[in-house]
Amino acid sequence: MKPQEIIQFAPDAVVGLDRDGAVRAEVHGSRAHMLARLTTLGLPVPPGVALSFDCVRHLAEGGPMPKLPPRSAPDRLLCLRPSPRDRAWGGPSATLNIGITARDIAAVEAAIGVVEARELYARLISTYALMVHGVDPEGFEALAHRILGPGPRQPEAMRATTEAMLRLYAEETDEEFPDDAADQLEGIARAMALDWDRASARILRQAKGGPAEGGLGLIVQELALGVAPGVSGAGHIQIVDPRTGAPSVDGAFLPGKQRAVTRPGSRRTGVLLARGRREGCDQPALEEMCPEALEALRGYAGQAAQGLGDAVQLYFILENGAVSVVDAVPARRGARASVRIAVDLANRGAITREQALLRVEPRNLIEHLHPQIDASAARDVWGGGLAASPGAATGYMVFTSEAAMQAAAQGEDTILVRLETGPEDVRGMHAAKGVLTIRGGMTSHAAVLARGLGLPAVVGASDLRLDLEGRRLVTPDARVLHEGALITIDGTRGEVLAGAPRMVAPDLGGALAELLDWADAARDLGVRANADTPADSRVARDFRCDGLGLCRTEHMFFDPARLTVMREMILADTPEERRAALDLLLPMQRADFEEIFSIMRGMPVTIRLLDPPLNEFLPHDEDEMEHLASAMGIPAGQVKARARELAEVNPMLGMRGVRLGVALPEIYEMQARAIFEAAIAVNRDARDPVVPEVMIPLVSAYREVELVKHRIDAVARAVEEEQGEKLDFSLGVMVETPRAALRAGDLAEVSEFLSFGTNDLTQMTYGLSRDDAGRFMRDYVREGVFPEDPFHTLDIEGVGELMLIAARRGRARNPNLKLGLCGEHGGDPASVRFCRLAGFDYVSCSPFRVPIARLAAAQATILVGKAGAEAVASA
Amino acid sequence: MKPQEIIQFAPDAVVGLDRDGAVRAEVHGSRAHMLARLTTLGLPVPPGVALSFDCVRHLAEGGPMPKLPPRSAPDRLLCLRPSPRDRAWGGPSATLNIGITARDIAAVEAAIGVVEARELYARLISTYALMVHGVDPEGFEALAHRILGPGPRQPEAMRATTEAMLRLYAEETDEEFPDDAADQLEGIARAMALDWDRASARILRQAKGGPAEGGLGLIVQELALGVAPGVSGAGHIQIVDPRTGAPSVDGAFLPGKQRAVTRPGSRRTGVLLARGRREGCDQPALEEMCPEALEALRGYAGQAAQGLGDAVQLYFILENGAVSVVDAVPARRGARASVRIAVDLANRGAITREQALLRVEPRNLIEHLHPQIDASAARDVWGGGLAASPGAATGYMVFTSEAAMQAAAQGEDTILVRLETGPEDVRGMHAAKGVLTIRGGMTSHAAVLARGLGLPAVVGASDLRLDLEGRRLVTPDARVLHEGALITIDGTRGEVLAGAPRMVAPDLGGALAELLDWADAARDLGVRANADTPADSRVARDFRCDGLGLCRTEHMFFDPARLTVMREMILADTPEERRAALDLLLPMQRADFEEIFSIMRGMPVTIRLLDPPLNEFLPHDEDEMEHLASAMGIPAGQVKARARELAEVNPMLGMRGVRLGVALPEIYEMQARAIFEAAIAVNRDARDPVVPEVMIPLVSAYREVELVKHRIDAVARAVEEEQGEKLDFSLGVMVETPRAALRAGDLAEVSEFLSFGTNDLTQMTYGLSRDDAGRFMRDYVREGVFPEDPFHTLDIEGVGELMLIAARRGRARNPNLKLGLCGEHGGDPASVRFCRLAGFDYVSCSPFRVPIARLAAAQATILVGKAGAEAVASA
Repeated sequence: MKPQEIIQFAPDAVVGLDRDGAVRAEVHGSRAHMLARLTTLGLPVPPGVALSFDCVRHLAEGGPMPKLPPRSAPDRLLCLRPSPRDRAWGGPSATLNIGITARDIAAVEAAIGVVEARELYARLISTYALMVHGVDPEGFEALAHRILGPGPRQPEAMRATTEAMLRLYAEETDEEFPDDAADQLEGIARAMALDWDRASARILRQAKGGPAEGGLGLIVQELALGVAPGVSGAGHIQIVDPRTGAPSVDGAFLPGKQRAVTRPGSRRTGVLLARGRREGCDQPALEEMCPEALEALRGYAGQAAQGLGDAVQLYFILENGAVSVVDAVPARRGARASVRIAVDLANRGAITREQALLRVEPRNLIEHLHPQIDASAARDVWGGGLAASPGAATGYMVFTSEAAMQAAAQGEDTILVRLETGPEDVRGMHAAKGVLTIRGGMTSHAAVLARGLGLPAVVGASDLRLDLEGRRLVTPDARVLHEGALITIDGTRGEVLAGAPRMVAPDLGGALAELLDWADAARDLGVRANADTPADSRVARDFRCDGLGLCRTEHMFFDPARLTVMREMILADTPEERRAALDLLLPMQRADFEEIFSIMRGMPVTIRLLDPPLNEFLPHDEDEMEHLASAMGIPAGQVKARARELAEVNPMLGMRGVRLGVALPEIYEMQARAIFEAAIAVNRDARDPVVPEVMIPLVSAYREVELVKHRIDAVARAVEEEQGEKLDFSLGVMVETPRAALRAGDLAEVSEFLSFGTNDLTQMTYGLSRDDAGRFMRDYVREGVFPEDPFHTLDIEGVGELMLIAARRGRARNPNLKLGLCGEHGGDPASVRFCRLAGFDYVSCSPFRVPIARLAAAQATILVGKAGAEAVASA
Repeated sequence: MKPQEIIQFAPDAVVGLDRDGAVRAEVHGSRAHMLARLTTLGLPVPPGVALSFDCVRHLAEGGPMPKLPPRSAPDRLLCLRPSPRDRAWGGPSATLNIGITARDIAAVEAAIGVVEARELYARLISTYALMVHGVDPEGFEALAHRILGPGPRQPEAMRATTEAMLRLYAEETDEEFPDDAADQLEGIARAMALDWDRASARILRQAKGGPAEGGLGLIVQELALGVAPGVSGAGHIQIVDPRTGAPSVDGAFLPGKQRAVTRPGSRRTGVLLARGRREGCDQPALEEMCPEALEALRGYAGQAAQGLGDAVQLYFILENGAVSVVDAVPARRGARASVRIAVDLANRGAITREQALLRVEPRNLIEHLHPQIDASAARDVWGGGLAASPGAATGYMVFTSEAAMQAAAQGEDTILVRLETGPEDVRGMHAAKGVLTIRGGMTSHAAVLARGLGLPAVVGASDLRLDLEGRRLVTPDARVLHEGALITIDGTRGEVLAGAPRMVAPDLGGALAELLDWADAARDLGVRANADTPADSRVARDFRCDGLGLCRTEHMFFDPARLTVMREMILADTPEERRAALDLLLPMQRADFEEIFSIMRGMPVTIRLLDPPLNEFLPHDEDEMEHLASAMGIPAGQVKARARELAEVNPMLGMRGVRLGVALPEIYEMQARAIFEAAIAVNRDARDPVVPEVMIPLVSAYREVELVKHRIDAVARAVEEEQGEKLDFSLGVMVETPRAALRAGDLAEVSEFLSFGTNDLTQMTYGLSRDDAGRFMRDYVREGVFPEDPFHTLDIEGVGELMLIAARRGRARNPNLKLGLCGEHGGDPASVRFCRLAGFDYVSCSPFRVPIARLAAAQATILVGKAGAEAVASA
């Protein structure tokens, strides 16, 4: 220990809580800072001083206690509260009742009664013994128990008890209990300082994400007793509803208690503050006991919200009806409440709109967009999987898409349960209210499609066994749910529940609508939607997207009538036969595009040319193949041979995307014609024309684009000539392979835009199929092998670097190049921020994530600012 | 046309062929340059002058003919030969016999006879008319035919013919035929100059890879007639055998002809030069007609080779036994001959060893390493595919690996024909002499394995139909080869032949061995081999590799006894069961490594830990699964369930490589233990210890390596302690994912080497599976979408850039980081050159490509030099 005399206290070692500017969180801790601000705002905070981190560290090293200002009244008791730099780091509990001495105890007895005063004295002695000397409190408790006996406590017995405790203290510690407020204070302050420095506390801080060396300040404050005649006690209050954010009194009051916060593990008790909501509690509400106190507290909470720029929960003490505020923390709030609170604060001028936008976590908007299970409802959880698509849904369990469609036709809600889904389940998923799969990851077919549809989904629920023969679902502990049972899936938490718990409906209006208006005004990053159907497009437009960033054309061919023609096209032996089948598909495709273009008037629509391997369109089992063959009047062997020929070892890395376009040019030519004819038809009488953007998938080399561009330009010229109208369209490339990213400079010479398909780009950068990753991704993330699932949050270090390289090289060759991201990451706030940083023009995401992306884009614009993008561009 | 008088001829516009240094290829063309050099070397080149490109261009623009020096004898005829910058660009034919005039014809008649002289005159008139005036030669031919009639030509008739031709010339052109050598010369020179400049000639030049504007020089040279009494005529000679490169006279002599090179399409005739080799030719050889001439020619050819530093083919004219040399080109030579020629030249001091190394195309060494079909043998080609593994093999056609093994047991050679091969065919391929598959690309299982085995292979022979039920192979035109037929595959050309054509045996000794010694002395890039078995390792060592760069461990588990244990391991339910199975595998693996280490003493051996998805080891059809289940005494359902569970949508991107190592640590721990125990056992008594390098496959993140490294280091410490010996090993990473390349800086902190698995890296960079690419890769390369198959020649622009990024980042963090390439590209000379440029330490390739890589590495070292690597490192 250092010699005590050489310590020189700094000017801010001890600062009064009434000196707001002088009390700083980084010097005195966050609690001291909060109390100083509340004091300045005029709230009745008991007077006190803040001791700096340095000061406390000196105490731990054996330095002297600094000199403190005199108490406002000589007989006021004191308390000592910890004030760490960050409240989340934990720390010692506050010590109350400091200053009770043999000399002063009579005055305290006179003020609050002998029994009560002696109770506080006893508590002080035992706490001091524990904290300063490490004496086990059980000895004191046993002593009190012996002397007091059963029944109500009597003044004399209480006196005898404290006297006995003082003797026991002296025996245990070989010292007399300090009979002086200053000595008591110094003893406890030093004990707190030493405790903060102990190895166990340091490890605990680190476990909570804080630094081992984090500072601890202390607050020496006059004590608001909470123990007095009249309405006295401790409580907490907030004036916003934690679920909705609407004005409403919420909190509790504990009559006769000194603390409103009990130790972890003990049950919080107390009475309600306001009339109206009681659950098995006989006591009157505080509003009935002391309406003035409640009124004052509401005022203080409002003052604090306005002054601090955030709704708060105040901790208070009532002493005979008089209010003291002893602490404040941000008000408890659910996701929905946070929106309402931020908007209300901004509308009251307490914060700016930008601040309001930054207050809301975009991911949490999900709660607004989908039905959720009521937080207070009982949950009968039967299994879990990945939370693949948010929201909750209840329905009768079906095991086939047909059953889901039949039930839907009769108005019955179903949950579709499948081992995994494929293109043949698309219509079943449209019909069901939710989907559960046993296999698959966050980007499996079921997960991606469900997010696109806004359909709650749990996937990869590998603990559950789907017994298709027994037509039942079996849990690991052998409980059984039969087909037809009513179940609920919670796609937000990834849970499967039996029955139908109470739900909360989605809510898109009010505060959220207002916040999103502000987001649109603030953001300079476009938010488009990935939508393949008119229905999806309508949802996207309703969610106020800026256009479609990805309209996949393959799903358009799964309608049974079209699928037949598509299969004829695939089974064609010659380009002529193929062209004949495509001629039948042309009007269907054109009609699709006309409908989507009509919905998206005035906006860009990016259409991706056919991408998946052709064998996805062929039947996969023998029966179906034979059926198809007989329907087409060809030998079954021919269908099987073609299917075998098209089968691939690694379909993700096979004959798909632009490779199809190069090998079978007729397909893309048909699609381009359908797009162009539809655009001319829709735009003919439109003031706000749609701008089609034709996108070539899975490119890896310049020449692929050049070849396809050449042919598409020829189709455009032909259509222009036939229709006698000028076409306005652009042509670009979907960057999904690492090579396309590296060669973006070349590609930019024949492209007007690059749109990053980050799902596939992630697969190829990692060498990891999203379909196969589900099996180990959870373990990988849990063990920290990957910090996050890269299919969920963009891998900035790998995939992101490829995007930066591509953006830089592309723009260097073609300064007008538009850059976008389409893929699951378009709805992920961190990924959106990265896109803004990389100077992208837009992100595109599932329709149901458009609101999230709009908010995330606004936050990115505010946070990154112009400088960021320029820094990236010149890097 | 420009006025003729203003042309000022440059000093080098007209230069004598005897002024070697003054005649330059880039000014006067390559033929002029060659003739000047031959003149200087003392060869009897007829005197003449070279006209520069500028001079010829002026002629085309209408400029004047420059003044030429006087002829050595006034009655010598002249010839005018083209001399383009590069002979490959084509150009006009030479015009001979210039200078025959009405005045001089008598002298020519006196010298060579009337009929002969008039023949030359007639040729001159007709050539001149065609070249200068574009007159169709048919008119002249018809005229001659009419006057001369059938039978031997008579002097007077010949005279009448030329007179009539002169009249016809005047009629057709309205001009008299120029009766002056200078006028004839100027007319033809200008015609040649104009011809060179014509659009059609320009396009032709470009088609041949030359520039449209390529220069043409002309040579005005005294004519060596070739038409004279005594032994006269034209011929060509080289004194190295075109097939072997050994000293041997080769060429032909055409008595009485003026040219030894006939026009395209006409058959070359003539007599042999030396005695001994005659094929249906009655005439005596030149050696018999005029031994002195042949002796002189041999001397000149030797002189030229020594002086020019390359074996040449001389074009010569004999005039009454006197030799004139009129041209020289590089001697014709096959791949084998080029090695012998280069080595002989270097040994004679005509060139340096470095020059000799650069003379041989490394790819051509393949001809030395494998049996080839004799170039002169008849070929009965039935179909074609990809030339997947070089060399030719003949055998009886079998359709199963079992049949191949049975036949091998009886000493019969077979060709294994399969739709495609899988791990179950490995032993069949070992037993067969060659393999043919109907499906698959250059890096399919069959192709890769065959190259590794040095087994000739043709893959992707998709024109052929394998009718397994009919047990036959059917060609597109319905010809049939039944199982058991004798066939030959030519893996160098990608052909399937019926029967057994004559073969040439491989030859690794002599000149090749000498050249490769020089290569080893010259190169500073290591050449290792990819070898999985003791047999492969022995081949690699015999081919003088510098160690093993890739020893795959998975093939070690396909032996039936081991496969059973491997399957038990895979079917294990608990880590304990798994460990029990692994304990059985441990001694087997250790024995494998001991054998390989013993063979590779004194060298590094890089062992890749288990890589493929586990389901590759499980049976794939129901019967086999049931068999396995009953053998193991478990329910068949369990095997099927596990197989289903392990099945993957995209196995290439699934649960393999380090992902297995992370999920099932026991496997890598067993392998590490086997490696370490084997190394200690082999090194215990060795002066030249083997250094095991443990390689982790399919990495994409730092933490994966850290986790595995941690466990392997623990195994190493345990083995060291148990054995009481110090272990020397290194641990590194196989870079196969783009992300691993981008994050190479991180990886280098926990790795001692990075080895680029360019097969997989190419797959992932392109998003293209090698197994699925076969279907369209040939079209892609043919249409120029990809300049080359990137699985064959490294894609420097994409994959190569990732390698450069990784090399730079890796070395920046860890300057001692070793860099290598393992994969098919290790045997590709262009890829080897790139690795040298990128500062790699070694490449690793199939054992049979080691000699190729050694030569390529030497060439890369010579060409790139030290500067290249430093430039790359500091870029």
